[in-house]
Amino acid sequence: MIDISDIKALDAADPLRNFRQEFELPDDLVYLDGNSLGALSRLAQQRVADAIANQWGQDLVKSWNMHHWIDLPQSVGEKIAALIGAGIGQVTCCDSISVNLFKLITAGLGLQSGRRVILSTSDNFPTDIYIAQGIEKLLSSDRCELKLVEESEIINQIDSSVALLLVSHVNFRTGEILDMRKITASAHKQGVLVIWDLAHSAGALPLELDSCQVDFAVGCGYKYLNGGPGAPAFLYVANRHQEQIRQPISGWMGHSDPFAFSTRYTAAPGIHQFLSGTPSILSLVSLDAALDVFANTSMAQLRKKSLQLSGLYMDLLRQYSLLDEFTLLASEEDDRRGSQVAITHPQAYAICQVLIDRAVVMDFREPDTLRAGFAPMYNSYNDIWRAVNELQIIMKNEEHLDPRWQARNKVT
Amino acid sequence: MIDISDIKALDAADPLRNFRQEFELPDDLVYLDGNSLGALSRLAQQRVADAIANQWGQDLVKSWNMHHWIDLPQSVGEKIAALIGAGIGQVTCCDSISVNLFKLITAGLGLQSGRRVILSTSDNFPTDIYIAQGIEKLLSSDRCELKLVEESEIINQIDSSVALLLVSHVNFRTGEILDMRKITASAHKQGVLVIWDLAHSAGALPLELDSCQVDFAVGCGYKYLNGGPGAPAFLYVANRHQEQIRQPISGWMGHSDPFAFSTRYTAAPGIHQFLSGTPSILSLVSLDAALDVFANTSMAQLRKKSLQLSGLYMDLLRQYSLLDEFTLLASEEDDRRGSQVAITHPQAYAICQVLIDRAVVMDFREPDTLRAGFAPMYNSYNDIWRAVNELQIIMKNEEHLDPRWQARNKVT
Repeated sequence: MIDISDIKALDAADPLRNFRQEFELPDDLVYLDGNSLGALSRLAQQRVADAIANQWGQDLVKSWNMHHWIDLPQSVGEKIAALIGAGIGQVTCCDSISVNLFKLITAGLGLQSGRRVILSTSDNFPTDIYIAQGIEKLLSSDRCELKLVEESEIINQIDSSVALLLVSHVNFRTGEILDMRKITASAHKQGVLVIWDLAHSAGALPLELDSCQVDFAVGCGYKYLNGGPGAPAFLYVANRHQEQIRQPISGWMGHSDPFAFSTRYTAAPGIHQFLSGTPSILSLVSLDAALDVFANTSMAQLRKKSLQLSGLYMDLLRQYSLLDEFTLLASEEDDRRGSQVAITHPQAYAICQVLIDRAVVMDFREPDTLRAGFAPMYNSYNDIWRAVNELQIIMKNEEHLDPRWQARNKVT
Repeated sequence: MIDISDIKALDAADPLRNFRQEFELPDDLVYLDGNSLGALSRLAQQRVADAIANQWGQDLVKSWNMHHWIDLPQSVGEKIAALIGAGIGQVTCCDSISVNLFKLITAGLGLQSGRRVILSTSDNFPTDIYIAQGIEKLLSSDRCELKLVEESEIINQIDSSVALLLVSHVNFRTGEILDMRKITASAHKQGVLVIWDLAHSAGALPLELDSCQVDFAVGCGYKYLNGGPGAPAFLYVANRHQEQIRQPISGWMGHSDPFAFSTRYTAAPGIHQFLSGTPSILSLVSLDAALDVFANTSMAQLRKKSLQLSGLYMDLLRQYSLLDEFTLLASEEDDRRGSQVAITHPQAYAICQVLIDRAVVMDFREPDTLRAGFAPMYNSYNDIWRAVNELQIIMKNEEHLDPRWQARNKVT
């Protein structure tokens, strides 16, 4: 039996226990939704306020040089690179995952002449699938065909007809981790290039993009990286592809000399060509500051605590016999479990609403999934204790059956 | 002879004279670069601070519903629509001009089967040309060919081979206004659809998109709309095209039911399908607040003062015989002159740097252009007086020939 004294001991011994002070979270809130929107760090709040008041407000257009706005996609990209096992010059920060996937899929197809299949999983995050479907419609069918298979079947389905493999490293629903090294190697054996979606990985677990010989990747700035709502995404292109590759959303920020204002697009060298339009500076400043919070810890340390949090969550679900009512989607194996635990229940939507009403924020995913995300920087062991206790009370008292929780409001 | 008493009289009689207090500009600065980066309004500063501290910081992921983040592309779009003569449901605010042009050009080509020419001008803003070139490379040559002609030749070059006409309403360099009504009508007679780039028009002069029967438009949030550095752009699609059109960067935010997480993309009805990825909320909040400043004036009133400012600037250039040294690019006709006046000089780069050093901010555009932009909300007649006086002193004293001003730093 785990009891509150065990929880107190875990928090007291936690080397990351002081990190929560870096964030502006409400004291009484159990926030287990950092996998949807990461919390506000004090650094981000301060730096955006300064960028607005002093950079935009006082130095105005001069700030592009004076405060290095023009370099932010690159400099923020390098801070992310350090968290995902990527050497310099391979990551830039811009646009959204959707837009960046459009660039990478079209550009990747351009490297794979004679092949037209994009292989992905039917349980991939929808925007990944939708972007591939948009490209499929735009290009003629002799250039592109999307093929969706079960996640468990992905390695078996790789063959030499496949141009690109498009997979999420951590499944947004189940939290299942795919084996990046093995899948990438299997793809390469068949001449297939791989695009990894790191939305639920970056900032959540250690990654080794270079070491795994990854070709391309995208990831999210507003989940575990805490960049703020709608923070810019990032993209990774391995050095070995950079000379040959060309992406089609060839806006002026990706030009080799944007301020020459020539009438002919010539791609900037390296990762820089993947920029399109003028980047959103306030959002980049926020993400830049949020990334600096990572400087005082390591991905290994964060991962260790994350697994302890998710392990504790599952242990407590079991201790209160909640797995008699809920079905566990998460893997019990550490190396297959991302920084979240999802459980299913026919009344998951209502249960999620009652939890939120009781100051425990998780999220619901159609049709029946209750996701708890763990952000080891600001989640305590006591957060997990409180969350499962509230869940237990709700289920016992059948609060979730109250009719007022039945009307759905689907946003996030 | 215009003298300082005339200037004082103009400022005293200016119905917009109190508007500058809505902005956080340094007192001593003459800022004539609002056509590159609009100034910071107090409203934007307050509202972003609130969105960070209270929405992101306290309400976290619930803010998507509670604070209507999810509706911001649409609600901000409607505020812009009111400034550009567009009825409701036709404007949304997202991504950059570059990305939005990619959507509109590819989608517009899809409506024009059998036609493949994109007609544009060689003096169009480079990113417009670059995006068309990217699409030209992506699609096969039987589907797309970019043809660039002189701006003055544009109407003559419209014929029935043309699918899309891509033109800027106000030339970024010369400030010349193209006749939107006439060009659109000429294009329609040949079955050509028109994409207008309003980067230097929106917030600067009255527009009548609906009345001119415009098909498509894009525009900029960070120039005359004062949305902040890299604020999201907007796009307009006329109602009559919305049912048929499909854009290829079909991310989840443009899905008819994004939170159903289905594996099949179905476009949202109306303008909403033009959203792709998760929008940048901090940037949208900033632009949203900046647009509220427009509620206390009208585009007609702003335009009237803008023409008086640019007229005064040219009169003073003449009064000090500066047009003996500089060549005027701007039109003297009010209905052909945007909210800027550009002049050229072989030493324009150095002159611009000396002006900035003397607290008069204009910008330089390759190879020899000095642009002064007029933002009637925060520019006074005295700003114009001071700017031309400083310019006169610099030219007389040959300060711009000082070697320290000769090294170029090209960013904006």
